[in-house]
Order: sequence, then structure tokens, then C-alpha cells
Amino acid sequence: MTAGNTYETEIIVDPDVPLVRIIREFDAPPERVFRAHTDPELFAQRKRPRRYRMETGHFDCHTGGSYRYRMVGEGNEAGFYGSFHEVRPSELIVQTFTFVGEPDGVALERLVFEDLGDGRTRLTATSLVDSFEDRDAFVATGMEVGVREGYERLDDLLAR
Amino acid sequence: MTAGNTYETEIIVDPDVPLVRIIREFDAPPERVFRAHTDPELFAQRKRPRRYRMETGHFDCHTGGSYRYRMVGEGNEAGFYGSFHEVRPSELIVQTFTFVGEPDGVALERLVFEDLGDGRTRLTATSLVDSFEDRDAFVATGMEVGVREGYERLDDLLAR
Repeated sequence: MTAGNTYETEIIVDPDVPLVRIIREFDAPPERVFRAHTDPELFAQRKRPRRYRMETGHFDCHTGGSYRYRMVGEGNEAGFYGSFHEVRPSELIVQTFTFVGEPDGVALERLVFEDLGDGRTRLTATSLVDSFEDRDAFVATGMEVGVREGYERLDDLLAR
Repeated sequence: MTAGNTYETEIIVDPDVPLVRIIREFDAPPERVFRAHTDPELFAQRKRPRRYRMETGHFDCHTGGSYRYRMVGEGNEAGFYGSFHEVRPSELIVQTFTFVGEPDGVALERLVFEDLGDGRTRLTATSLVDSFEDRDAFVATGMEVGVREGYERLDDLLAR
């Protein structure tokens, strides 16, 4: 295991329910991978594509908290908001997610941080919506590229 | 239309996604039916079965807010918590819901308040989970009785 190792990102489109499951391993213990999801500064660094800036309205990552942010760059801007249903340190985040451009769409997201030992973590992120049509439209946006790039930025953050 | 009219509660188990849809009409305008869902006092009166008391930890029904309450009575007690993802006055509530006895289970609930005119409202409540097994177990608890009784208490509240 060397620093800078890049793992495969596995993206599974569930055949039975309108859910996408994304699995990725990281060369860092659960505490650090978790913190990159809960710390507003680290969250912004990890989420933001190059040449974009993130404007965080608020980001209160604890059970019963909520968030709202906007990404701006290259002539585009996109807003997102949601609630943190449950946050269990280094283990679990359950949150809702809406893209402001589709205000009636909402996803229920679950992030599970699994300790693999040897300072490694497996992160399983699921995103559930209420129709296969919306789920498939989400997959068809080419979200895979954004997900993989976001996790590569997270690798970089964790290697520091 | 007479005061004290009791409408049918339609409970639809979705064949395609793990979701239950509950539809009910009320002899009151959307503003009043909505308020019975957002006002902590009215919420407690409506939810609480006879011979139970409700202990509300907190109930902040606005976009980004959250709630936690407990029902105690007849030797039983049950806790519930969740977040309000979105609250649009007299129109929509999107929230999460967990029963403390099953801390890893979470439902995404959507309540749509539809103005039928003549001081009437149709309320459509959907509850989405991530597996058919969990959805069917929820339906098998006999939740229909609790739902119908809760809506009859809401009829009584609205008739005052």
C-alpha cells in the first residue's frame, strides 16, 4: 500500500429499488474520511471541482442539522440543500439532498464508513429516490465522472 | 357536506417502489390541515392515541429543522426522530422519520396538501424506504388502524 494509491470507484445501479450504491476504499482510517465529510472547510475542498468556488450558506453536520451551498464557476452555478437526519461519528451519515434546479426532487443518502484495519476505510454511499425514472436520469447525467474526481480530490486531501 | 363528515383513508402499497401512499380528504382548507402538522401542540394532540401522553423533545417544523418526541402510555413507550428537509407553507412537508427501536431504519416522507376548493383539502402522504422487505413489514404492523384513528382525531381538531 503506497501513498497516492487510487482505488476503483464501484457504482452499482440497483435492479430492485430506485437506488444507486457507490463503493470506494481510502488509505485513511474512518475518523479522517468521516471528518472530510463533516468539516465545512474540508467538505468544500473535496466537493468543489477545479476552477469552481463554493459558497457555503450553512453546513451544520450533526444529527438534526442542515446544509445549503452553491458551486459557482465557468459561467455555471448550482445550489444544493438538505438535512442531516443522523450523524454517528466515524460510522454513519444519513442526509437528504436536493438540487435547487429540481426543487421537487429529493434523495435520501446514507454514507457508511467501514473500518478495514491497517488505516483503510471502505465508504459505501447510497442514494434513494422515489422513482426509477429519476434515478436513471441521475445516472445518465454522467455523475460518474464527478463522483470519481471528487474521490480523487479526497485521496489528495487524505494524503496531506 | 356536514361537519363531522369522515372520509375514507386510502392506503396504497406501491407495486414498483418500496413506498406506501396514504390519501385522505378533510373538511378544512389547506392552511388549517397544514397547521395541524406544523404546530407542536396540535401535532401532539393529533398524533397521540387516547390514554397516551406525548413528550416532545423538540419540534422545529421549518426547512432545515428537526424533531424528536416520545409517546408513553399503557405500559409502552416509543421514540421517534427526524429532520424537516423542506416545509412550504400550506403546500408541502418533506421529512425523514426513524423509530428509535429500529435506529438503522429511516423513511423519507412527503406530505402534499392539495386545495380542493369549498374549504376542503386532499392530503397525500408517501413514505419511502430502501427495501420492499422493510416497507412490507411496516404495512404488516397494522399501521392502518393507527393512521385512520389519527386522521379521525385530526377531523375532531379541525371541527372545533
